[in-house]
Amino acid sequence: MYVGIDVGGTNLKAGLVDETGRILAVERTPLDFQGPEAFAATLAELSQAVMAAGGAAPSQVEYVGVGLPGAVSGGDVVYTTNIPMENVPLEALFRHTLDLPLLLGNDADCAAVGEYFQGAGRGLRDFVVLTLGTGLGAGIILDGRLRGGESSSEAGHMVLHAGGEPCPCGRRGCWEQYASATALIRRTEAAMAAHPESALCRLAEEAGGVDGRTPFLAAEAGDETALAVCRAYVEELAEGTASLINILRPEAVAFGGGVAGAPEHLLLEPLRRRVGALCFSRHGGRATRILRAELGNDAGVIGAALLGRVI
Amino acid sequence: MYVGIDVGGTNLKAGLVDETGRILAVERTPLDFQGPEAFAATLAELSQAVMAAGGAAPSQVEYVGVGLPGAVSGGDVVYTTNIPMENVPLEALFRHTLDLPLLLGNDADCAAVGEYFQGAGRGLRDFVVLTLGTGLGAGIILDGRLRGGESSSEAGHMVLHAGGEPCPCGRRGCWEQYASATALIRRTEAAMAAHPESALCRLAEEAGGVDGRTPFLAAEAGDETALAVCRAYVEELAEGTASLINILRPEAVAFGGGVAGAPEHLLLEPLRRRVGALCFSRHGGRATRILRAELGNDAGVIGAALLGRVI
Repeated sequence: MYVGIDVGGTNLKAGLVDETGRILAVERTPLDFQGPEAFAATLAELSQAVMAAGGAAPSQVEYVGVGLPGAVSGGDVVYTTNIPMENVPLEALFRHTLDLPLLLGNDADCAAVGEYFQGAGRGLRDFVVLTLGTGLGAGIILDGRLRGGESSSEAGHMVLHAGGEPCPCGRRGCWEQYASATALIRRTEAAMAAHPESALCRLAEEAGGVDGRTPFLAAEAGDETALAVCRAYVEELAEGTASLINILRPEAVAFGGGVAGAPEHLLLEPLRRRVGALCFSRHGGRATRILRAELGNDAGVIGAALLGRVI
Repeated sequence: MYVGIDVGGTNLKAGLVDETGRILAVERTPLDFQGPEAFAATLAELSQAVMAAGGAAPSQVEYVGVGLPGAVSGGDVVYTTNIPMENVPLEALFRHTLDLPLLLGNDADCAAVGEYFQGAGRGLRDFVVLTLGTGLGAGIILDGRLRGGESSSEAGHMVLHAGGEPCPCGRRGCWEQYASATALIRRTEAAMAAHPESALCRLAEEAGGVDGRTPFLAAEAGDETALAVCRAYVEELAEGTASLINILRPEAVAFGGGVAGAPEHLLLEPLRRRVGALCFSRHGGRATRILRAELGNDAGVIGAALLGRVI
């Protein structure tokens, strides 16, 4: 058995997970960062709690896997984006409290691992998960091995519009600036400002604000402004996805994150059409399938727990 | 031992290659395409000739590897770009004449395999070779395994300038349209038209035309027009290289093809600086090295011969 911990923006969620990726028990604790030592101890205590909840002794657990937003290298955190950690030997600190191996992964990578074993990627060998959220997270599994740790992909920072929108990474025109949920919201707000009479505006006002579902809800209701926003977003998503597919030629790309829950005919169907038209594979060879991620919020815990199977 | 055959634009070059990647004998024959059956027989006869030249019996040779411009899948050619072949069961045809396994690879992939074992990639596990020629060829080896066959990379068809220059692949703005030798020549000719008084123009006229070395030669001589061409080209090369590095996070990227032979201070040095400034790794984690390919024209033969070691 394994313990998988998903370090989110406000909570830590731990699962006791069996060899097949099934979650046997879950425990949560708020994220209250008081320095690396205390954080490592919290991870260890949460691991102990979920083992107890699932009736597993530490000797029955092979390791604890942790998914973090940031970069890792072996058992060390290089940096995290939601917590002030930099070059922290997290495994060493963790073992002060609980003497089990600690495997670390980027959160987008863990989502990909979860989907690979238990979700959209079951039975595949070459598989990519793109998580459409605040950023555009990419998890890449090739030939059954995760591009993790120091090889962890930052595919959102592939430039699609050279010289375009500035990106916090320091470049201009990164794909993430056009295809993340944040970018979709920005595009939606710009369309609302240009079309204050639109149903999109009414709907956003009723909902008390804009999130990644707003333009799809308004487009479902037939609003032309929202439809144009959705189409433009699909185009940006398709261009980058086709580039990534041309580079990696995977069997499938699955989309996760809140935006990926949009109605099929507004997101995945037109995306499939556009990616199919843009990809090099239409000249011959294997075509990559476009899928929806299946596990939702469980992907991170399952993926963290199964990290040891792909690294 | 292995036989490796490099199918070029006008010639087939075969090498008898030992386990370490050393070439023991070489034979050449003109490419005179008379249909798939005759082509397969030519490959077999050339293999027999190079085995004889190297004093090896067919029983001492494990397989024949062939590098082709185009796409392959197992022992089948999906299509080739310089020869009219489409969906040809080349291994089956080859075995009519010589009963050895036939391994097929894309030419850019074979160049990467050659460099991986005997050139710039020695000792690495994650390695990319970009060949700057008519197109922009990419060969990708990750964790010691080639992204070959149906997974063969078409990284030149990553879009860098969305909506930009049309590409024969059907997209607009592909990196290849800005960073291949062809693109460099196009850029050079445009600069010459705008600056007929430049030393670049004089030099091109003396040489009887423009090739991928012309702007570097003129820049070496201090011509400002040529220097601007070289700088703009390096910028396009750097943007795409940084994107590819952000996606794959390899240990090294090596550049091959005629253009890569340009003086270090005009190509690789500024390229290293720009890629270093653009890559995500400057936020932490492993930095990717930028190298020059080492094997020149032998890479294709050696790589074809060693295909079986990485697939």
